[in-house]
Formats: sequence, C-alpha cells, structure tokens
Amino acid sequence: MASGGGEAVELRNKQVILKHHVSGFPKETDFELRTSSINSKVPEGSNGVLLQSLYLSVDPYMRLRMRRMEDPGHYFTSFTPGSVIDGGGVGRVLDSRDPNFKKGDLVRGMIGWEEYTLVTAPETLYKIEHNDVPISYYTGILSAVGLTAYVGFFEVCSPKKGEYVFVSAASGAVGHLVGQFAKLAGCYVVGSAGSKEKVDLLKDKLGFDEAFNYKEEEDLNATLKRFFPEGIDIYFENVGGKMLDAVLLNMRTHGRISVCGMISLYNSDQPEGPKNIMSLVYKRIRMEGFMVRDYYSFYPKYFDWVLPYIREGKVIYIEDIVEGLESCPDALIGLFKGRNIGKQVIRVAYE
Amino acid sequence: MASGGGEAVELRNKQVILKHHVSGFPKETDFELRTSSINSKVPEGSNGVLLQSLYLSVDPYMRLRMRRMEDPGHYFTSFTPGSVIDGGGVGRVLDSRDPNFKKGDLVRGMIGWEEYTLVTAPETLYKIEHNDVPISYYTGILSAVGLTAYVGFFEVCSPKKGEYVFVSAASGAVGHLVGQFAKLAGCYVVGSAGSKEKVDLLKDKLGFDEAFNYKEEEDLNATLKRFFPEGIDIYFENVGGKMLDAVLLNMRTHGRISVCGMISLYNSDQPEGPKNIMSLVYKRIRMEGFMVRDYYSFYPKYFDWVLPYIREGKVIYIEDIVEGLESCPDALIGLFKGRNIGKQVIRVAYE
Repeated sequence: MASGGGEAVELRNKQVILKHHVSGFPKETDFELRTSSINSKVPEGSNGVLLQSLYLSVDPYMRLRMRRMEDPGHYFTSFTPGSVIDGGGVGRVLDSRDPNFKKGDLVRGMIGWEEYTLVTAPETLYKIEHNDVPISYYTGILSAVGLTAYVGFFEVCSPKKGEYVFVSAASGAVGHLVGQFAKLAGCYVVGSAGSKEKVDLLKDKLGFDEAFNYKEEEDLNATLKRFFPEGIDIYFENVGGKMLDAVLLNMRTHGRISVCGMISLYNSDQPEGPKNIMSLVYKRIRMEGFMVRDYYSFYPKYFDWVLPYIREGKVIYIEDIVEGLESCPDALIGLFKGRNIGKQVIRVAYE
Repeated sequence: MASGGGEAVELRNKQVILKHHVSGFPKETDFELRTSSINSKVPEGSNGVLLQSLYLSVDPYMRLRMRRMEDPGHYFTSFTPGSVIDGGGVGRVLDSRDPNFKKGDLVRGMIGWEEYTLVTAPETLYKIEHNDVPISYYTGILSAVGLTAYVGFFEVCSPKKGEYVFVSAASGAVGHLVGQFAKLAGCYVVGSAGSKEKVDLLKDKLGFDEAFNYKEEEDLNATLKRFFPEGIDIYFENVGGKMLDAVLLNMRTHGRISVCGMISLYNSDQPEGPKNIMSLVYKRIRMEGFMVRDYYSFYPKYFDWVLPYIREGKVIYIEDIVEGLESCPDALIGLFKGRNIGKQVIRVAYE
C-alpha cells in the first residue's frame, strides 16, 4: 500500500531513553531526554504505521524491563540501554503502509516513549472503536491493564458470590478495578493502600467494603485478622513481601492467590521470599502467576462486559494524568513511591 | 456390641511420649519412653477398638506436629506434651466394641506410638483386605503415603505424556513413588537425593531417567539447567528452601508445582522464603499445596490402579524397617538427617 499524500518532512521527535540497566531504586538520572527527528512518511518497503503519541501508559512492570534479565525464560525483555523506552499507549495515525490503518485513525498498542513512533509490527496495534469514552481509557481500563484485572480476577481466582477478597495496591491501576469487579461478582472486598486519601477513595467512591492504610499498621497479620475474621478466600497479589507473608497466614482452606505482580520487590536484586510459604500446604492454597498476554483473546468478551458498566457509572475508572513526555521518568519513579492514584498516564499531545 | 470373650488382664504398654513442644532440630531428649499399662478389654460404654501395634509409620510431617501451632487454620494439630505421639500404623484387633471390627482383624489408621492403642474413633480405621502384599505396605504405599504420591502427582499436577518432571527427596517415602508414577505416565523424570547410594537406587532400580546428589552440587540452578535444558514442566516439591529457588528459575511456561511438603524448613522457626517467587508470574506457574486428607475418596481408585503394578513388580516399593518401639524417636530424627532410604517404618511386633 502506498503511503498517504502530503509532503515528507522531518519532525522533531523528543524521546525518553534508558541510559543503562538499573538495579536498586530508579532515579531520574537513569533516563535521558533526547531530541531526535523522524520522517513524516513511512519509508518505502516498510509496512509500518507512523503514530503521533497522545497518551502513554506508565506501569510498574516497566521497572522489571529496566533490569538486565539473566533468565531467558522471562516474558519481559529488557529495555536496550541507549534506546527509546516502549510501553502501552494511544496514538493517532499520521501515515500508514498497512491497509488496516489510515491517517487519522486512533489506535492503541505498544508504542515508544517519544512524540512520534514508527510501528513496524502493526499487527500489534488495535483500532479504537468506541468514541463515547475518553481515549485515554485505552491506556488503562480499555487496554491490557483492564484486561489484567478482569482475567486475573475472574479467570485465575474463580470467584464465588459471598467470598472474601483482599486486594493489595488497591488504589492502583489494576487494584481499583479488581476491587470493583469483585463487588460486581458479589464478593466482600477489602483493599490496602498507602495513604488516607487512597483509603477514603476506596471506601467512599469505589464501593470497597473496607480499606486500610498499610503504612499505619504495625502488624499486618493482626490487621488482616481484624478485617477478615473468617479468613481470605481470594487474594489479588500486587505487592509481595511482608503483605504476602501476612496474607498466607490468613488464607482460608482452598483459597486462591492470583499473582499479578509484586511491586515491593521490583527495586531489590535479592528480595526476601515469603517465609510462610508452607501455608500453601496447610491451607491447600493455589497460588498462580499470570500474564495478560495469554488472555488477549478475551478482549472482545471483556469489552462487551465492561463498557456498559463504564457508561452506566457502575465501574469508576480513576486516572492520574500528567502532562508532557518529559514527565515520564518521574511518573515511573513515582509509582514506587506510591504517588499515583489510579492509573498513571502521560498526556503527550491533545487529541 | 459386647466385647469379645476371654478374661480381662492388664497389659504392659510401652509408649513414646513427646516431652515438650520442640523448636530447632529435634533430639532424642525431646522424647521419653514410658511404660504404662492398658486393660485388654475395651471398656464398657465405649465403641472403641483395642489394637496391638504391628507397624508404625514415621513421617516428616510429624515434625510439624511437634511444634506449638500458633495458627488455628492449620490442618495439623500439635502433639500434646506429656502424651503419646500418634501417627499412621498397622495393628491387629485384640478386642472390639465396634461391629465393623472383630478380634484378629488387621487394620490401618491413626494409632499411638505404643504397644497397644485404644482407638476411640474406629471410623478412622480401615480393614486390610489384600493379604498377598506385606502388611507393612499399609503404612506406606497402601496408605496415605502412597495416596499422597498418587493424587499429588496425577490430580494436582495434571501431567501429560512427555513432560519433564523433577522430584526432590526422590528416594523418600513419597518421592520414590512419585518418580515411578511419573514414568508410568510417560514423563521424563529426574530426582534429587542426598547420597550416591540413593542416586544409584533411583537410576538403577527405580527407573528414573536421571538423578543427582544435591549435596555434591555447588550451584543448583546450573545443575537443573544441565538436567533440564528444556526446563521443568512439573515439580513435585518435598524440600523447599534453596531447591525451590533453583526450580523457580528453571520452570517452563505454564509449569505446575505440587507442594507436598518442605522438609528443609521444618526445623526452623524463621525459614527463608523463595526469593525467586516472581517467577510464578514470569512463567505463569501454578503452585498448589495439597493434603491427602482431601482425597481419601480416591482410595478405591488408587488401590485398583496401584495393586496390579505392585504385584507385577512394575512399581517397586522400598521400605526402611527398624525394629522396636524404642527406635521411633531416632527414626524420626533420622528423616531430617537423610538417613532413611524409602519409607521409614518401625516394626513393633511381628504379625
């Protein structure tokens, strides 16, 4: 397919580069802002799609990609030092040599942390079809983030009405959706978060039955016993570390732990493991890690399920939108300081 | 039902008592040999069964019952200091007020570490029906031990032909059966054990494809990479600790870990947890603890399946039989020194 009309020009392209692999807590100096240029036309011989970045998704798993990965079995491939970081995002098609996309289309997919991205594998892009919701939602509730909450809860945990559900990092991008999905499934839901503001949000706006600020709790085991006198049937694991150890002591027999991530471990090279792991035997617990990529076929089912709830206001989606590409490093670092509430998004350009 | 004929006499009853709850490595002085007496008739008003102990089962999980259990959710109840230890065993009925059992019957079930046991809940006893196999087998392959291997492998791991299976503590009571069951299922099986003699047994007599002495390996991660260049589909977990951490790095995507026990942790109050726990996510691993008590309904199916293999010599069952009730404490301690090969059994009296 020929590229669209108009004259080819060189566009200034600001980019966020990872300078080197990172161990320990990430710093702004691990990143570099570079100004490059890119041709406004997809090169001949390519079947690529050139996008203008509109919204970028900032997610905890990206920290894992900043490491040098030793283990070839990893799903996450490391970022390449000196290269542009990539992640989920929403863009507008500026030029295309793929017949499925035309100039002006709005798409979501994996794009660079840069103003313009040439996507050379356009089969990984999805056209945005529902224009009655904000397009930034396509970096979150209407992207892999929302699907993560959906399949991680419904497919991995097999919830039953009336079960006791605990969600950690409950005001985060995935957590605040899991809690609302669990309420829709008829479960009793408690969330943990790291500030009073977040706890109030969970209880007052998002319909969690209870919530607590883990930073104010001396003894997480006692805390969980207080909120779950009958024990926990389902734990949606986002944090790992001490919280997981306390949860293991408070699970009910035949409980399920869906492991989405363990943000408390991501900045450590030698994280501590859960010392109460034998509870898996005592309580006959199933603990299962999952990755949303195994569930992409669920997108249509998930969208059909979630869109009416969004439109009716029965699922509330919280976004924490920061302006400008140059905010990306600080926003990513902020995830590990618990700064964001809801989904961390960068607005690179207005629609 | 009336008790059987014959005159009531007082029988000398040697017993093994736990003196106190134990932390750290168990010692002979944690136990006491006591000589008590017991009436040869079941008391009137009881529906109990009086057994003469023939064989006693000595199992790693008993160490857990020697602890004070803080967590009421535990399946294992602690032994009571000052009281007789109980565990699996085989006995002969001396007297019975339960219509299902009569004098001379051979039974298996939970019995005391004593010469004579009054079983007051005879519904927990099973009559021994197959007399063409040694009755000591009813403390092992034809008891909860064998059923543990069967359900822990077939039900929890869902094996498929050709999959790569790793078994730790592979020369132990459960492990040496799991490995043989996995071979019958068409899997490739590697076992780890703690001596050359055990490794030779696994490879030369029990049909494991490979086996290694973990005590001679410097780097278990490298060892597992050597034996499983394609990775591990199924890990039957008996040991925990460093081995689990190495396994987590070597699992294949969508692998399964069946957690039967973690013997390396049982003598520690603050065991280290698996620091590579995030591999559950990277590899989308299902890790599931189980307890055989949830599967007692599988006994008939399991016996029908395993008895022909035993009779045809297609499953070889290894017993490590020690003489005399007074050997019980040392035999239990020996489990944690890796002294036994196959199932540790005490012969209290000949049939």
